[in-house]
Amino acid sequence: MKKHNFNAGPSVLPQFTIENTAKAILDFNGIGMSIMEISHRSKDFQPVMDEAEALFAELLDIPAGYKVLFLGGGASLQFCMVPFNLLEKKAAYLNTGTWASKAQKEAKLFGEVVEVASSKSANFNFIPKDYSIPTDADYFHITTNNTIFGTEIRKDIDSPVPLVADMSSDIFSRPVDVSKYGIIYGGAQKNLAPAGVTFVVVKEDLLGKVSRQIPTMLDYRTHIKESSMFNTPPVVPIYAALQTLKWLKNLGGLKVMEKMNIEKAEMLYNEIDRNKLFKGTAETEDRSIMNICFVMNDEYKDLEEEFGKFAAEKGMVGIKGHRSVGGFRASTYNALPKESVQALIDCMKEFEAKR
Amino acid sequence: MKKHNFNAGPSVLPQFTIENTAKAILDFNGIGMSIMEISHRSKDFQPVMDEAEALFAELLDIPAGYKVLFLGGGASLQFCMVPFNLLEKKAAYLNTGTWASKAQKEAKLFGEVVEVASSKSANFNFIPKDYSIPTDADYFHITTNNTIFGTEIRKDIDSPVPLVADMSSDIFSRPVDVSKYGIIYGGAQKNLAPAGVTFVVVKEDLLGKVSRQIPTMLDYRTHIKESSMFNTPPVVPIYAALQTLKWLKNLGGLKVMEKMNIEKAEMLYNEIDRNKLFKGTAETEDRSIMNICFVMNDEYKDLEEEFGKFAAEKGMVGIKGHRSVGGFRASTYNALPKESVQALIDCMKEFEAKR
Repeated sequence: MKKHNFNAGPSVLPQFTIENTAKAILDFNGIGMSIMEISHRSKDFQPVMDEAEALFAELLDIPAGYKVLFLGGGASLQFCMVPFNLLEKKAAYLNTGTWASKAQKEAKLFGEVVEVASSKSANFNFIPKDYSIPTDADYFHITTNNTIFGTEIRKDIDSPVPLVADMSSDIFSRPVDVSKYGIIYGGAQKNLAPAGVTFVVVKEDLLGKVSRQIPTMLDYRTHIKESSMFNTPPVVPIYAALQTLKWLKNLGGLKVMEKMNIEKAEMLYNEIDRNKLFKGTAETEDRSIMNICFVMNDEYKDLEEEFGKFAAEKGMVGIKGHRSVGGFRASTYNALPKESVQALIDCMKEFEAKR
Repeated sequence: MKKHNFNAGPSVLPQFTIENTAKAILDFNGIGMSIMEISHRSKDFQPVMDEAEALFAELLDIPAGYKVLFLGGGASLQFCMVPFNLLEKKAAYLNTGTWASKAQKEAKLFGEVVEVASSKSANFNFIPKDYSIPTDADYFHITTNNTIFGTEIRKDIDSPVPLVADMSSDIFSRPVDVSKYGIIYGGAQKNLAPAGVTFVVVKEDLLGKVSRQIPTMLDYRTHIKESSMFNTPPVVPIYAALQTLKWLKNLGGLKVMEKMNIEKAEMLYNEIDRNKLFKGTAETEDRSIMNICFVMNDEYKDLEEEFGKFAAEKGMVGIKGHRSVGGFRASTYNALPKESVQALIDCMKEFEAKR
């Protein structure tokens, strides 16, 4: 049976990425060895790193003055690396969900943290908009897409201080005006690669301004200086990321990708709004195009388990909602085909007709 | 032409690991999805993590009270994580090479560092033995195998304070008396897996004794509590590590592995000592069984480049020595077949006969 992969992350990747990565593991570029068995500084691997960095910058249209890094440790390590490198006195955070809260918590070890706004009391079902960013903050941190709650900041914010964004779950889903950001970071395991590599886009002139001593591996300047090769980088995830970047470019880049993502999301949201059994959980204007959260309408609450089973039997994978929200979550990342969204919609219609 | 992979790391891996990893990337356990596309908390991946942890502990014969972790960031990140977690006032370090020096440098950000001994003045060609470990140190740090210089501490040291060992390049090459160590850590990309996962074996009762606040991701207790699943772990490298652990167990475990490693190393050292063109660079009693460093004898120095080319033509890969030592380095990690060592020896004999 055809599987429709709605996993929230690690999640669906392009077949192009999967097949090329498997090939490189068996025999890399016909050199008679696996990509896992060669030096990261070899003439075989170096072009992978160089090309991944260049294509990442090209697709995101990154202006001069920024550096793209591929690091280990996950976005969670960035939660402390950002304040290590930027927080001298005060930082501002927007609290839009579980991951935003975790990032904010970490910063408190390094200085004063101002929470400019929070949607916690509404179980993070919207993005706060009416807030002011302190102009004496060292930076302002946002989480652009809230995987668990299905909300998304899809507009590049104007910030009076350097804007730092965790884009783990919506990087490459749309064009971004990088010039409005100081740092963009994220785990790769949604729209880019398998887990194990973290991307960081950092504006170089923001660095070197804090008075603390930063451990070598946590200092962005270490990795900038060595072009992500200070120590052995996660070669397989980086190779896989390069394949996804090539796939994105072949597809037409981020404007095309965004159009496809909006189309997929609208198809599913339309069905959620139409179908009498279901309702969305996020405020309409803040709905994510990556993670679509919905629950049974109150009068059909007892059908939740049954629908879950019904959908699983039809090949839907990973649509159980996070325990913080309940119900269902369909993650519609870049590599999820429109056909899978249609299959889920058909499922919802069929289940409705059955009742 | 058959390639003989003497790379220093990332380096040769068992064919069993390579083939099973490629298979899991194409379709994991027949679930119709890649291992790269599923949740690390899924019923499909969780057993991989559990089994890798259990088999790691079984093969190293780890006693109760220790926890095995699989983390991101590389051994270089451990250089700061160790002092973050253990260094309250003073730490002792043995300086046996480039990586040992880097580990020591990092600790200085956290407290007083005592270098108990160093072989730097002899270009690290031996392991210092005549030193005393301060009994008031929080821990004593060693690097068991010095990849660049080809020296190795192959005996488990008795230390009056917790012993911390970077075993990046000789883990699983021999049985280890883990009870003599407080922490054993290392990057996986030599004897275990592709780059991207770092193993840490930590004695749990050593933790929680420092007065500083530790960032969440850098606190071993975070990862112990969540069994390496606090955030998304590097799934592909962990899966590959599990395959190598299975291969090791099938082979008969670490006593068998050690016997094979000693046999391979002796074959090559015997040829180096016999062949009039070459000489070893490390002191005989400290010679590594993982990285075998040798140079041309003084009167044949001008033949270095020619031998390098000759060997490359015969399929030898990665035998150029590190620039700090020059000459040649043949890394004979666990997965390197005896046949490859014999092929290199044949090469050396043939080149000698030609001259």
